Amino acid sequence: MSEKVAIVGTGLVGSGWAIVFARAGFQVSLFDSVEGAASKARELIAERLVDLVEYGLIDDKASCLARIEVAGDLAAALKDAVYVQESAFERVDVKRALFSKIDKIIGKDTLVGSSSSGIPSSAFTEHFACRDRILIAHPVNPPYLVPVVELVPAPWTAPETVRGVRALMDRVGQKPVEMTREIEGFIVNRLQGVLLMEAWKLVADGLASVEDIDRTIADGLGLRWGFMGPFETIDLNASGGVADYAQRLGPLYQSIAASRPLHEVWDGELIAEVERQRRAVLPADKLAERTAWRDRRLMKLAKERQL
Amino acid sequence: MSEKVAIVGTGLVGSGWAIVFARAGFQVSLFDSVEGAASKARELIAERLVDLVEYGLIDDKASCLARIEVAGDLAAALKDAVYVQESAFERVDVKRALFSKIDKIIGKDTLVGSSSSGIPSSAFTEHFACRDRILIAHPVNPPYLVPVVELVPAPWTAPETVRGVRALMDRVGQKPVEMTREIEGFIVNRLQGVLLMEAWKLVADGLASVEDIDRTIADGLGLRWGFMGPFETIDLNASGGVADYAQRLGPLYQSIAASRPLHEVWDGELIAEVERQRRAVLPADKLAERTAWRDRRLMKLAKERQL
Repeated sequence: MSEKVAIVGTGLVGSGWAIVFARAGFQVSLFDSVEGAASKARELIAERLVDLVEYGLIDDKASCLARIEVAGDLAAALKDAVYVQESAFERVDVKRALFSKIDKIIGKDTLVGSSSSGIPSSAFTEHFACRDRILIAHPVNPPYLVPVVELVPAPWTAPETVRGVRALMDRVGQKPVEMTREIEGFIVNRLQGVLLMEAWKLVADGLASVEDIDRTIADGLGLRWGFMGPFETIDLNASGGVADYAQRLGPLYQSIAASRPLHEVWDGELIAEVERQRRAVLPADKLAERTAWRDRRLMKLAKERQL
Repeated sequence: MSEKVAIVGTGLVGSGWAIVFARAGFQVSLFDSVEGAASKARELIAERLVDLVEYGLIDDKASCLARIEVAGDLAAALKDAVYVQESAFERVDVKRALFSKIDKIIGKDTLVGSSSSGIPSSAFTEHFACRDRILIAHPVNPPYLVPVVELVPAPWTAPETVRGVRALMDRVGQKPVEMTREIEGFIVNRLQGVLLMEAWKLVADGLASVEDIDRTIADGLGLRWGFMGPFETIDLNASGGVADYAQRLGPLYQSIAASRPLHEVWDGELIAEVERQRRAVLPADKLAERTAWRDRRLMKLAKERQL
């Protein structure tokens, strides 16, 4: 019998995680506090597995799906699990209530990763006996197509927990990155956040359209970022490497940063304007179709990265 | 005889532009104020055309190269050109001196795009008779693999100039995006700049390594940005589209932005630390080889986008 992983919270993120672990050969047990949600998630997973087979990303749908079971309750889900991936709704009170239950029934060697995308785990794990075995393991959606996972320890997370979850993520084919300590938004949403704040401000100031800003990334900067990070990008963009680049272009970037000394809120009017520009390009009733298109593009990319 | 484009300044950027126009069937005339530089550039272009043929991005190296000639002087380069792409060294005094010469000999219908990556053209074109026919046409490097080009008018740039250069860029297969007016860094370097400032700050604060930050983009956020922009990304990341997303996640991003109220300079010590971490991953003598690898990846991507 292969090792078992528990997925607690089976929405979009949790069911994505289920595919990651089942694909890698783990037994996966699903639990959601909403009655019937885990069974529904398993049906959605079955549909996604069809796409993954079609794109050559998994070989055998049936055996993969056979490894995923719906647990009768939280205790059954956690029983004998080597790892729990918590993906409940992102609110401190919800997470804390859930971890209070997990704490009472968790096995003494089981590690726990929380899919929280911005709230550090110290905000909801402080008072639990198992707190040294909990950390943030935040994916980018969907985790079975986008491999990065950020590992963020709370002050009381044991170093062995980080090492253990890192090794597990390596085994299942994810790409773990580590923070040394907590900060709001971690790496993913801090980097995405600063980019978004500037993008919204360019629209707010009437400097460019939503569509043209998108094209600037999709037909420009993003082509490199699809396979190399920002430091490697600038390291290769000056003949003397990153230090050379920093000397030459640092002043420009610092001047740009200084031009936005105060953050500004995306107010209702600005949100309505961006919504208007996006809906002109993509009507609301086409959102789901375009999302499926995005996932097909990501599957092609994921397949190419295997070759 | 096909239409002619002049490339003034034939470094990395200028020679990249020469490929863009020659590939599209234009006659290309090269001029550089440094003696011998244009001839050297033509040799480099010939080498790059070999790669482009190998990756299926151009059919015929010889005819493409035959369309590129080295001009004897600036006047010869500009003679009968429908368009001039200026890619001189990025310093206001250098650009101004060059435009003062261009102004005296340019044809009365010739349009001019400057490859300036951050300096608005109003800083160096104000006093010239041809100023209404000049705008910024800033590429991402190399322009024959990364199609975006930002068009930024000065206050005195004629609307027909923007329309004309936009149409030309469309014809040669680039993807023009437009700013309505000038701002330092335009779109490309403002978006890249805010991302870099945050990335450097995460390193400065010891929160994550250069390598892990790079992986967060290259194995995470960048996978989507390689084919869709930040607005489309968030539009598809909430079931109700971008306005729904803004309501849910706006507060997180605003809180992240507020945590960096003052810009901080990349000081010498921080630059040395980032340089150390990059050189540990990629020694200085491997920079050129890795750059060639990046260009091969970009060529594969460019080829896939044609299919």
